[in-house]
Amino acid sequence: MQTRLGAQTVALERPSVILSSATVGGRQESEGPLAPYFDHLCMDSFFGEKTWEKAESAMQKMALSKALEKATLAPEDLDYVLAGDLLNQCTGTSFGLRDFHIPFFGLYGACSTMGETLALGSLLVAGGVAQRVGAMTSSHFCTAERQYRMPVPYGNQRTPTAQWTATAAGCVILGAEGNGPKITTVTCGKIVDKGVTDVNNMGAAMAPAAYDSLRAHFDATNTGPQDYDAVFTGDLGVLGHQIVTDMFAEDKVDMSQNYHDCGMLLYDVQKQDMHAGASGCGCSASVLCGYLLRQLSEGKWKKILFAPTGALLSPTSSFQGESIPGICHAVTIEA
Amino acid sequence: MQTRLGAQTVALERPSVILSSATVGGRQESEGPLAPYFDHLCMDSFFGEKTWEKAESAMQKMALSKALEKATLAPEDLDYVLAGDLLNQCTGTSFGLRDFHIPFFGLYGACSTMGETLALGSLLVAGGVAQRVGAMTSSHFCTAERQYRMPVPYGNQRTPTAQWTATAAGCVILGAEGNGPKITTVTCGKIVDKGVTDVNNMGAAMAPAAYDSLRAHFDATNTGPQDYDAVFTGDLGVLGHQIVTDMFAEDKVDMSQNYHDCGMLLYDVQKQDMHAGASGCGCSASVLCGYLLRQLSEGKWKKILFAPTGALLSPTSSFQGESIPGICHAVTIEA
Repeated sequence: MQTRLGAQTVALERPSVILSSATVGGRQESEGPLAPYFDHLCMDSFFGEKTWEKAESAMQKMALSKALEKATLAPEDLDYVLAGDLLNQCTGTSFGLRDFHIPFFGLYGACSTMGETLALGSLLVAGGVAQRVGAMTSSHFCTAERQYRMPVPYGNQRTPTAQWTATAAGCVILGAEGNGPKITTVTCGKIVDKGVTDVNNMGAAMAPAAYDSLRAHFDATNTGPQDYDAVFTGDLGVLGHQIVTDMFAEDKVDMSQNYHDCGMLLYDVQKQDMHAGASGCGCSASVLCGYLLRQLSEGKWKKILFAPTGALLSPTSSFQGESIPGICHAVTIEA
Repeated sequence: MQTRLGAQTVALERPSVILSSATVGGRQESEGPLAPYFDHLCMDSFFGEKTWEKAESAMQKMALSKALEKATLAPEDLDYVLAGDLLNQCTGTSFGLRDFHIPFFGLYGACSTMGETLALGSLLVAGGVAQRVGAMTSSHFCTAERQYRMPVPYGNQRTPTAQWTATAAGCVILGAEGNGPKITTVTCGKIVDKGVTDVNNMGAAMAPAAYDSLRAHFDATNTGPQDYDAVFTGDLGVLGHQIVTDMFAEDKVDMSQNYHDCGMLLYDVQKQDMHAGASGCGCSASVLCGYLLRQLSEGKWKKILFAPTGALLSPTSSFQGESIPGICHAVTIEA
């Protein structure tokens, strides 16, 4: 049995172990400060395929294969793989996983997907219904641009609050036993919509969801930012990060010391001209699977809170005048 | 602890109980043979909203509200809601659930979504990490037509193998304790792709996945169709149902006595001119939440196998020449 703390948080009495992780990125990622933490960086945006959508599937294949290799496991050693992406009907995932023959639960959490896969995967392991689970997601700048905004060759002008969708995939292998950082709590997000309608300002749209889940997590576990070596939101970017910091300041909680956003870490925002920073499912996934887990496994950190955020809109919902609902799933990871 | 039987199946030592279910449908559903089993049938395809997409969200709201009401529960009594739909970015679900404030895991399993929500929901309950879970999905003929095929006013000609996307939503409330039919086994599907590329023949594309999961389930549980009062696949339609029957006949397994497909039950296929039958997430969801669960709760059946099927393609993947991967998640439900 697990311990439920409040409405959204479960403390796992049987924490799931991160047996391995792998991450794949593209050219922009290779020019960013986290480049040394990627397992594979490809200068060809097509990853050797004929289309960018197929490239995204290729990235997922590479990430899963590498993570399995690092854990010395075969695909059939996984009880489930939980995965999803931003493409319509999540085809990056379904075509990426097609040849692995692993029992598959498809998830859609927009850019919170890495948090969602880790949360559900950990709950399955904690409940004793799975011994080993793959958790994976991806995004690709060119597939996201043409699906959500404009085809890349159009050369669309970007607003100052816009973010750059990461071309990256990340995969974690969770196990019931073994060595590695452990997922010790899971906080499942609620949908939060504060009425933001600007599709070029995802940070503002998602920040209230990040605040809501972090607030729920802190309250349920009776902790604050000071109890973690670092707290990471998904891909709020510069503006969203500031909004979350301000919202906590109103509660007299100081987030200024150790709160970071994956969207501000993946690129050198100024030098690479990334406007508000990185976004996409692959942003928090690749930051976690490379940089964050390395710091934990090398003992530089003991305990972090990882809280990817997602915007649950579609181009159609925005055309129909809807605001942008956000969600944020958080997990505690301890060395 | 649960018992894993083979690679895909878990026998739940703590079965989840179906506390209530509710289903909502549209005009075509009101003219079909299962009309008496719907909680609400609306003759207006807009369900009082301004767009069909908003209508789909309205259907999910109605289904969840009704299911909660039947179980005498409030939204805050649910630990999680697991839901998804066919719309790009699953916005039928995110906008439908926005006002309920229930911790939410978004799923994407195409038309297998009802099976996926029940499978994952049951695993969470069985593992003791949740006490009560909502499992829900929907589809809408008009949103699906304009997204996957042609806008409805265009009057697109349909092929003989085409199916009619159900305008329907279904919601189940699962609990760790209580009275009602129980989910006793969960079989998680693998992605199966036999190379079918005809987007107007989903039955043929998904049938191999249905066969694969049913085969895995029968093998793992040492059962055959004769051990169930009835076996139901999701929305294979007339052709897919025949293919599954033929595939089992090659194994010397006789499916002809009690194997049905939800896509052949929802409408009077001939009279309503539905070509190969019904499809869409809402097809298997509404057939389960109305007709099937009624038969179980009235004691007419003791044990059924419910196996919704999904096609994991997108319009883009088909334009790029890809074949159609399928998946099928199966659960055993016992009175």
